[in-house]
Amino acid sequence: MKMKGDTTIMIKKGKKRTQRFVYFFGAGKADGDASMKSLLGGKGANLAEMTRLGIPVPPGFTISTEACKLYYQNHEKWPGGLKEEIEGNLHRLEQVMEKGFGNTDNPLLVSVRSGAAVSMPGMMDTILNLGLTDQTVGGLIRKSKNDRFAYDAYRRFIQMFGNVVLEVDHHHFEELLAKKKQQNKTTKDTELQSQALKELVAEYKQLIQKQTGRAFPEDPKEQLILSCNAVFSSWNNKRAFTYRNLNHIPHDLGTAVNVQAMVFGNLGNTSGTGVCFTRDPSTGAKVFYGEFLMNAQGEDVVAGIRTPQPIAVLKKEMPKVYAQLVKIYQRLEKHYRDMQDMEFTIEDRELYLLQTRNGKRTAHAAVKIAVDMVKEKLIDRNTALLRVDPEQLNQLLHPMIDPKEKLKVIAKGLPASPGAAVGKVVFESQRAAELGGELGEQVILVRTETSPEDIAGMAVAQGILTARGGMTSHAAVVARGMGKCCIAGCDAIHVDEEKGFFKAGDLIVKEGDYITLNGSTGEVILGQAKLVEPKLSGDFKQIMQWADSIRTLAVRTNADTPVDAQVARGFGSEGIGLCRTEHMFFEKDRIFTVRLMILSKDEQERKKALEKLLPMQKGDFKEIFKVMRNLPVTIRLLDPPLHEFLPKEVEEIQKLADALGRSAQEVREQIETLHEFNPMLGHRGCRLGITYPDIYQMQVQAIFESACELAKEGQRIIPEVMIPLIGTLSELKVTKKSLIQTAEEVMARYRVKLKYSVGTMIEIPRAAITADEIATEAEFFSFGTNDLTQMTFGFSRDDIGKFLPKYLKEGILERDPFVTIDRGGVGKLMKIAVEKGRSVNPKLKVGICGEHGGDPSSVEFCHEAGLNYVSCSPFRVPIARLAAAQAVLKQDRRLKVKGGR
Amino acid sequence: MKMKGDTTIMIKKGKKRTQRFVYFFGAGKADGDASMKSLLGGKGANLAEMTRLGIPVPPGFTISTEACKLYYQNHEKWPGGLKEEIEGNLHRLEQVMEKGFGNTDNPLLVSVRSGAAVSMPGMMDTILNLGLTDQTVGGLIRKSKNDRFAYDAYRRFIQMFGNVVLEVDHHHFEELLAKKKQQNKTTKDTELQSQALKELVAEYKQLIQKQTGRAFPEDPKEQLILSCNAVFSSWNNKRAFTYRNLNHIPHDLGTAVNVQAMVFGNLGNTSGTGVCFTRDPSTGAKVFYGEFLMNAQGEDVVAGIRTPQPIAVLKKEMPKVYAQLVKIYQRLEKHYRDMQDMEFTIEDRELYLLQTRNGKRTAHAAVKIAVDMVKEKLIDRNTALLRVDPEQLNQLLHPMIDPKEKLKVIAKGLPASPGAAVGKVVFESQRAAELGGELGEQVILVRTETSPEDIAGMAVAQGILTARGGMTSHAAVVARGMGKCCIAGCDAIHVDEEKGFFKAGDLIVKEGDYITLNGSTGEVILGQAKLVEPKLSGDFKQIMQWADSIRTLAVRTNADTPVDAQVARGFGSEGIGLCRTEHMFFEKDRIFTVRLMILSKDEQERKKALEKLLPMQKGDFKEIFKVMRNLPVTIRLLDPPLHEFLPKEVEEIQKLADALGRSAQEVREQIETLHEFNPMLGHRGCRLGITYPDIYQMQVQAIFESACELAKEGQRIIPEVMIPLIGTLSELKVTKKSLIQTAEEVMARYRVKLKYSVGTMIEIPRAAITADEIATEAEFFSFGTNDLTQMTFGFSRDDIGKFLPKYLKEGILERDPFVTIDRGGVGKLMKIAVEKGRSVNPKLKVGICGEHGGDPSSVEFCHEAGLNYVSCSPFRVPIARLAAAQAVLKQDRRLKVKGGR
Repeated sequence: MKMKGDTTIMIKKGKKRTQRFVYFFGAGKADGDASMKSLLGGKGANLAEMTRLGIPVPPGFTISTEACKLYYQNHEKWPGGLKEEIEGNLHRLEQVMEKGFGNTDNPLLVSVRSGAAVSMPGMMDTILNLGLTDQTVGGLIRKSKNDRFAYDAYRRFIQMFGNVVLEVDHHHFEELLAKKKQQNKTTKDTELQSQALKELVAEYKQLIQKQTGRAFPEDPKEQLILSCNAVFSSWNNKRAFTYRNLNHIPHDLGTAVNVQAMVFGNLGNTSGTGVCFTRDPSTGAKVFYGEFLMNAQGEDVVAGIRTPQPIAVLKKEMPKVYAQLVKIYQRLEKHYRDMQDMEFTIEDRELYLLQTRNGKRTAHAAVKIAVDMVKEKLIDRNTALLRVDPEQLNQLLHPMIDPKEKLKVIAKGLPASPGAAVGKVVFESQRAAELGGELGEQVILVRTETSPEDIAGMAVAQGILTARGGMTSHAAVVARGMGKCCIAGCDAIHVDEEKGFFKAGDLIVKEGDYITLNGSTGEVILGQAKLVEPKLSGDFKQIMQWADSIRTLAVRTNADTPVDAQVARGFGSEGIGLCRTEHMFFEKDRIFTVRLMILSKDEQERKKALEKLLPMQKGDFKEIFKVMRNLPVTIRLLDPPLHEFLPKEVEEIQKLADALGRSAQEVREQIETLHEFNPMLGHRGCRLGITYPDIYQMQVQAIFESACELAKEGQRIIPEVMIPLIGTLSELKVTKKSLIQTAEEVMARYRVKLKYSVGTMIEIPRAAITADEIATEAEFFSFGTNDLTQMTFGFSRDDIGKFLPKYLKEGILERDPFVTIDRGGVGKLMKIAVEKGRSVNPKLKVGICGEHGGDPSSVEFCHEAGLNYVSCSPFRVPIARLAAAQAVLKQDRRLKVKGGR
Repeated sequence: MKMKGDTTIMIKKGKKRTQRFVYFFGAGKADGDASMKSLLGGKGANLAEMTRLGIPVPPGFTISTEACKLYYQNHEKWPGGLKEEIEGNLHRLEQVMEKGFGNTDNPLLVSVRSGAAVSMPGMMDTILNLGLTDQTVGGLIRKSKNDRFAYDAYRRFIQMFGNVVLEVDHHHFEELLAKKKQQNKTTKDTELQSQALKELVAEYKQLIQKQTGRAFPEDPKEQLILSCNAVFSSWNNKRAFTYRNLNHIPHDLGTAVNVQAMVFGNLGNTSGTGVCFTRDPSTGAKVFYGEFLMNAQGEDVVAGIRTPQPIAVLKKEMPKVYAQLVKIYQRLEKHYRDMQDMEFTIEDRELYLLQTRNGKRTAHAAVKIAVDMVKEKLIDRNTALLRVDPEQLNQLLHPMIDPKEKLKVIAKGLPASPGAAVGKVVFESQRAAELGGELGEQVILVRTETSPEDIAGMAVAQGILTARGGMTSHAAVVARGMGKCCIAGCDAIHVDEEKGFFKAGDLIVKEGDYITLNGSTGEVILGQAKLVEPKLSGDFKQIMQWADSIRTLAVRTNADTPVDAQVARGFGSEGIGLCRTEHMFFEKDRIFTVRLMILSKDEQERKKALEKLLPMQKGDFKEIFKVMRNLPVTIRLLDPPLHEFLPKEVEEIQKLADALGRSAQEVREQIETLHEFNPMLGHRGCRLGITYPDIYQMQVQAIFESACELAKEGQRIIPEVMIPLIGTLSELKVTKKSLIQTAEEVMARYRVKLKYSVGTMIEIPRAAITADEIATEAEFFSFGTNDLTQMTFGFSRDDIGKFLPKYLKEGILERDPFVTIDRGGVGKLMKIAVEKGRSVNPKLKVGICGEHGGDPSSVEFCHEAGLNYVSCSPFRVPIARLAAAQAVLKQDRRLKVKGGR
């Protein structure tokens, strides 16, 4: 393919035009550039930019996203002037290429590709070789002197066009092709000779006539018009619509259409095609990385029929082309200041770049590249911070399945807690504790669903798999808190705990069988896969340090145990934002006493049980305070409904009955009376504290006694007591009064004066609406966004599995509100609460301790809403730190844009 | 007792005084008047007013509530100047009475009574005969010439003072009194002679010395000071505090203290005491009504030892006094323009009025008196409307237990649905249906709790009694909807459905035993009490007509059946605000088909079941539309979670399995998968409509087919389709689009164009917050305040029994938010929703269809918040009509007060 120098075409005057729809690129000049992504799409903008940079790109033109939008507004008709503009640009392309579109001697062939502003794999397939007809194929034969190549190109075009534009099902073409190969006694496409391919062309055309009721269009312009419409339409096909919903892409952006002169990598052994990266996308190393295939088209590389060769081999085979490619890649990376992913084609020793874009990379590579580029002075620190996807850091913080492993995936559930785990299947918590605890075996706890009774088993298991429950089910929340791999809501399996097996399809997995969980993808794998342990690089620490230097949100952790607290402090947590006292209640040696306390018939019996619990709680708090010395520790008083602590098993009930001196029947009845219809909205949180004030008193006593004892040893302890489930000012007043009384008594007894504060969860809609009342008595607010989301939406997080998937798929909800804060509803309530709270109490400290505290988008929202801190599970602390820094940068950018206007 | 003419005392000048604390009344003049209730309390203001009217009232003075408030602000010390003012007024009283306080010859004795602005029976007991000491008793003997009378007065005073002021327990005095009677070989107080009484005085004093460690005060002034303090303190005693919480009385009003010269009704046969009403408080008839006792003090009338005589008897015994009393009562009623309740004492043929106040009356009397007084031109119509308590109308609309019956109350629960019912106890819905339906017996359904499966049994029962659940539990809501008597949450009983009995304490009530329920008080009565059927008088209709002429809120009804609709129309309902389609699903012949529909494995199976349900629903709607012709009918699409419709019984499951061709085990498992942790927040409402669109389509088809068929017959049908549980605009858009499509298809098929509208419940907090989005697609909002309250507070109405009672008792909540709208929280959300909704859709119609729609205070709030209508259960329609009228009058009054300032 040869091109002539620049040619200018004249757009007809006379007709008044306010908008331009088509942008040419070729021969070193381009109407567009890289900044015009929203108008030209990513691909089109970069093709224009490369052309401007003097990089060899097959010329062509881009029809703008604006044209696509008008097409939809105009009931799927082209806007006025579009046809003329396309014709003008086509003429200009003919001139540059010195070929004619539809010319029978020297035909111009083009590719047609969709290209939106954001990458959208769900959209239209590419159409290659457009412009071929029974007339023009002769010209291609004459020019290429290769009739097999020409007929193969023609049959491929008809197949693509027939399928993509005319919507004839793929398998019809495949059937004809298979039959033809059979007739010719071969199994490979490449061994079909020109006569056979010529016959196939005719058969394909008959197929199209039969299936669509009309002939294959022999007019190249008609081919082009139909293809452009197909691209426009593909914007709204079901795949694209669903993809946009799942990836939170607006539906009104539209797509651009790229029409580009064809170049051929399959013209013989001096042609080829390949893909390359400016750095290693898996490690981030600064090496030229890629692979190529000689005598092949792009689709052959993708199809994986032949194995491509490493890019270094090209240096030997075509040193000049390789040298040119190296120059280009260095140029492009320097120009875009980011790692590039490029596609190229060599047509008869002539190099063409077909695409460049910022390359996808692993978390490890992302961190290394960002830090390296700062060292290389390619980018500044802020840009480096924005280059790393906080969510992706998860990969670095948890064990992963070795990417080289061949896996037998037997089911897929929700990726509830990231990482990977290998172990023997067990179905009961107690069995898990036996095998995993005492015998030291690696186990995976598999259950239909977990309940607080399973905590001990979860603690010793490597990972947890449940058949029911969502991303915020009990199993998921607890596992994330423990930093433990978990797959939840895996409804492809049926668990029979009693008989000791689970079924995945026809496969039966029994207790003791090995499985592997991938908590980052939700895949359940049969057998023992090899795992890779995480290690944190110096680059990672560098990124975190930069992040800390600019973020304004503090990052705390949700930690219930000294171990969790230690892990979180290691990850840079600046305090505990949520210490759930109830998790301590579930420990093996305590739960029995807790149960005695709950089943007490009178205050005296309860007092006795509480007295036994006091030293235990005190010990817990002391350990946690020690780990977190000098940092604030927010302790939430008892929150869950009491029945969560009570047993269902006959033996356990009997044990309690014996200890209480009652009959098992009596105890069972008592447990029954604690049953609730909607426990989420029941007798819990401060409602318990008000009806059984001695429980909270014991907890407060334990907090202050342990803090006072440490303070006497000279340690700086900063307790913050948090009252859960406040809905009215009166509840807070009553609870706080008794709390302060106990705290002051303890401090007087120890002759210690601690700085402490008392605050409340904001998790009930009423608390948010009346925050100006609540804040008169609260020193801090901590948004419990799990419950706040449940009540604001009226969604039980344990029960949404039946409709949430459909909601997400159909775009009724953009995101799972339990993963990312619903800014339009829950977020509004939060903003109301912050504003009202600070209006009466300007010093009010505001944080968040729901699961959202570790979600990057939610962290960004919390920054915007003016919160003081976020608190998340230990393993998400680094994610939150980076997200908090990005929030600052993004806000600055928005302010600049606004200021600039 | 004789008094001298007016005497003026001089308040010492010199000291600058800004506030006055003490108000004198006596000898025809008074410092206060009836308008000063908040300062002088109800009693004090009326004593002053009567004095001014020239009515004989024992003179005295009132210490203002302001003094009480300052007493509390001042750490329980008297404000400066109070002592001096009391002394001045005491002196003035001595002069008027021509007696001396502490004078040994002619002692002045006084009574001390508390008296707040609102009547508060929980407060302090009265102290009589204050001023008696060992010195002054001699004077009383000489003046009365009756030493038994004098010592009896003295010992009564010490007993009252010792108990009320010095807090010596009552039973200590009673013991000494009993002993004394034993010594004197009598059982009656009246037979103790003066010597014995004199001894008792000495023994009482020793008792006080022993119990309190100090002597009984022999100084009348000290007695007075201590008594005043006791009255002040009684304002904050536990009884009073609880009473105020339960009756929604603010805690900062304070009480006044009334010090009044004693008059004696027990000076012999020319003395006496009595109580009388200006009209019959039970029937409202315009007759002089009351009773009296000769030679008695007020406490003797109350104690019920002697039976009082009808007031008419007084005419014969003391014609002059009677004539005087008649004149006074006529004067007082005319003056106060309301029925008066008066206390009087005759001291030696001299008549004194001790109190007058507006009399309490039955609903029947309230209505009659209000209408009569308008006829008599005593009051205008607006005043008449404000004279009837809407809540009280309940008495007129339901059967009542004959007030003459002697009852054996065996337990007390929540008065969940008013009225009374008698019947045989049954424990199962099916048994109820057998006995009550086919055999026509009167039954009471008794269950631990009810579920939707019990609807059929509830429908045939006379009344419902449950051991669990609150005022808005399933049993309560359904019973109120049916206008059926119900007692819920009666935790004093233990129900054993299987064995067929319930226990109330030690009493066992078996199936077939008769009980009576009083749904207005919550009393469960053993046996068959006699009931009185309600009848609506012409006066009632008159009041309703006046109410309708001024109210601006429309009143609709919640009705699910033609019968309910008919009842409500009879009570003046202006449309249906909520027709719950699911109640139709529970009918005996349908529930099976509904279950088949729910358990369908695929769309086809479900379609088949829905096709069977279509004609049934269509028939229901047709009947309801007919009853409500010309009025709007709001039909809510299916709302409850599907599992509510499924059976638990083995036979029922087997029947379903047979019909579906599956095993019982399979069906049971399927039912289990529908189990939800928090059904209230689960898969229900529009979430069902979105996941199973064909269910809503069937319902919409049924609505429009029935409406079209009636329209063709020339009837005016106004369907309003309501979508439940909307939380986001997208949900409404998706559901509405499909709904309108079905509706338009049906109307096109029938060639009928109906005027219909589509709206949504606002019951999810998120819907309220985003009402400006929702209202772009909704033609009306209907607040589902039951669910909105549940989610705004995070209270499950079925589970609040464990903490709500404590919350109400301790004043943490002023009212049960499921009975009266919580203005501070839920109300705020409602106002936000109304404002936001109308901001984008000024024509938006807004109503309420939660239980609150029939609560007078909530109706008032709805009026203020600018709603267009309220909808309530049929039997509450008259209540809502009156409450809506009162809301207008109260708002006018507030506006006038504001305007006047």
